[in-house]
Amino acid sequence: MTKKPKSIKTPPTNNELQQRLDNVRELMNEQKFDFYVCFDPVNIYYLTNFAFYVHERPFLLVIGKNGPLKMVVPLLEKAHVIDKAIADVEYYDYYEFPAPKGENWFDVYQSIFDENLKVGIESSMPIGIVNKTPGETIISDIVEETRIIKTDYEIGRITHACKIVNKGLKKVLKMCRPEVAEFAIFQECSSTMTSKIIQDIPDANFKATETMGAVWPPSISHEPHLVPGIFDKMEEAGPHVTIIQAQVDGYGVEVERTFFLGDVPEKAVEPFNVMFEAREMAYNMLKPGTIMSDIDSKVRQFIGEKGYGEYIIHRTGHGFGITGHEAPYIAEGYHRELKPNMVVSIEPGIYIPEIGGFRHSDTVLITNDGYVKLTKGPETLDEVTIEL
Amino acid sequence: MTKKPKSIKTPPTNNELQQRLDNVRELMNEQKFDFYVCFDPVNIYYLTNFAFYVHERPFLLVIGKNGPLKMVVPLLEKAHVIDKAIADVEYYDYYEFPAPKGENWFDVYQSIFDENLKVGIESSMPIGIVNKTPGETIISDIVEETRIIKTDYEIGRITHACKIVNKGLKKVLKMCRPEVAEFAIFQECSSTMTSKIIQDIPDANFKATETMGAVWPPSISHEPHLVPGIFDKMEEAGPHVTIIQAQVDGYGVEVERTFFLGDVPEKAVEPFNVMFEAREMAYNMLKPGTIMSDIDSKVRQFIGEKGYGEYIIHRTGHGFGITGHEAPYIAEGYHRELKPNMVVSIEPGIYIPEIGGFRHSDTVLITNDGYVKLTKGPETLDEVTIEL
Repeated sequence: MTKKPKSIKTPPTNNELQQRLDNVRELMNEQKFDFYVCFDPVNIYYLTNFAFYVHERPFLLVIGKNGPLKMVVPLLEKAHVIDKAIADVEYYDYYEFPAPKGENWFDVYQSIFDENLKVGIESSMPIGIVNKTPGETIISDIVEETRIIKTDYEIGRITHACKIVNKGLKKVLKMCRPEVAEFAIFQECSSTMTSKIIQDIPDANFKATETMGAVWPPSISHEPHLVPGIFDKMEEAGPHVTIIQAQVDGYGVEVERTFFLGDVPEKAVEPFNVMFEAREMAYNMLKPGTIMSDIDSKVRQFIGEKGYGEYIIHRTGHGFGITGHEAPYIAEGYHRELKPNMVVSIEPGIYIPEIGGFRHSDTVLITNDGYVKLTKGPETLDEVTIEL
Repeated sequence: MTKKPKSIKTPPTNNELQQRLDNVRELMNEQKFDFYVCFDPVNIYYLTNFAFYVHERPFLLVIGKNGPLKMVVPLLEKAHVIDKAIADVEYYDYYEFPAPKGENWFDVYQSIFDENLKVGIESSMPIGIVNKTPGETIISDIVEETRIIKTDYEIGRITHACKIVNKGLKKVLKMCRPEVAEFAIFQECSSTMTSKIIQDIPDANFKATETMGAVWPPSISHEPHLVPGIFDKMEEAGPHVTIIQAQVDGYGVEVERTFFLGDVPEKAVEPFNVMFEAREMAYNMLKPGTIMSDIDSKVRQFIGEKGYGEYIIHRTGHGFGITGHEAPYIAEGYHRELKPNMVVSIEPGIYIPEIGGFRHSDTVLITNDGYVKLTKGPETLDEVTIEL
């Protein structure tokens, strides 16, 4: 297996952001767009290093065929954007939302380009913004497309983010005992990860930083997206399932483990082993050239043959990058090839009412000849059975 | 002045949610919609009590002229929605994103209604979802419209949320001294507010709960949306400006204060007094019937006459409800009347480079004959000058 890449903790350089923009412009050129407009804060962050939350005052990034980026920003936020943006940006500020006639965000926006042009837009652009966009608008998620293959810099940042969640997982497994409350786990795990983030990156952008650590005790682990109550308690045996996620100064990753406190119930052994084998099967297919839907189909088929098909409620994996959930998808509906420098989760799951949930998830880098796991933790049934 | 309403800390009843839905259906009827579709998680929360984050797997709430709500949900999330939703909901689940042909979210969505109908949609609906919506789609933000006037229940929840931020403000003013780091303030203030939330509402939904407390020291307080660094330190004198915000189990409010540590610099006295008078002027107009743009215009005119016009960078106020930033807006571009049971901020601000920022903000309820402030804190220059 390939060696783990080196961690990177520094902000992106101008060159890094220029390379991302060049990739976007290459696709703009192929699709003959005169402009491309981003509304999605994730795409704007990717291209500018400026992170924000969407409120009623829109931010719009307008990319021409060449020259600096143009950004429509509320006056109130201009200093914030200038402080954080690394790219070469020309600002078009507007006073307020809503503003008197002639001074609204769309007046400024519409002054940038005219009606005779071909303008690419995101499928996530709100219809209210699409309707104010001049030119012929064409939906094409080209920034999302370029984000699928990570640069060396991004891989370094993701590798660092994985160290943070690894530490979170270690903490949770260490403190998790029957009767311990969810709240204590959440607090300790978040504080462990946040402290490490601050030590490593003292000027981390907290608009692009978030941590989450929680455990689903066996009575609810068969419902992976039910939210545990903060006063819920850990139980005897298992399966407990922990989710540890972080967005670390802009890069999102996760590590998840099924584990047992003391005993492994008889009924949990087989589903654990089936999950474990399904996971091995997915890893064995993990190399450039494999069609992603084939992985998910094979995993589903295998779990089905073992008699657990009805307990599958999600795909085998998803991508990571500046978010913890994005393309590519290791899903039956996603017929594309794995390529080097994609980063994905591998997390086939089995969820059985009355017994519980079974899922390990790791953040995994696709390399030239296979893959390398960037997260780590106990894996085998023996390793995940914690002695009390 | 009217008495403060009583705090409410309990979840909404079925009747409360039914009343909200009835209000939406009244507007649907007026606009002759056969269906209305919500994508915005805020609107879905308002009508169902189910809170979530938007990922690639869409949730869609389809409202017909009568009968139960219909909700398109990812299979993985169904148990979570059922656990939290209070309204009468019929579920349309889909397996995954992306899914094999015929099993995608839009296949399920399109099975709900047909091409011959008039369908109202939000202006924030992503174009990719609009394009998969059957029928004649018409943009009309009717749920946002109904949210502008608060029910008695909502006012009770907002009153409670204000108690949380009041406590946060008290804590910040108590601990804020020169050399104290931003990080300490943020941590202490968040933990004070979070502890109180958990004491008051042990089963608070943490997907609809958030707290924020930070102080802009005088060297950056003239840029209210610049984000202070976590190792930034409080300074001598001022103006320091603190923002305390919380979304408390679904209800968002804020309280903000300009304050001084020890001395008030000579140059800060006049702008503070102008801000203070502008604020009084806004309060004096705060009653049903006043046109909101008139308040903002008068405030701007007054500040301009005093010679500080160029230092205004935002409107006088905005609404609160299930978010901390929403309609109505006390802004020059918003020509609507104040009505009883609206909740707004009053926060005219002056921001002078080299001197600092001047802004108090409160969460204020409009009553039948005036208003009542739901947040509290020191106000006059004397009161906000903290002895060292």
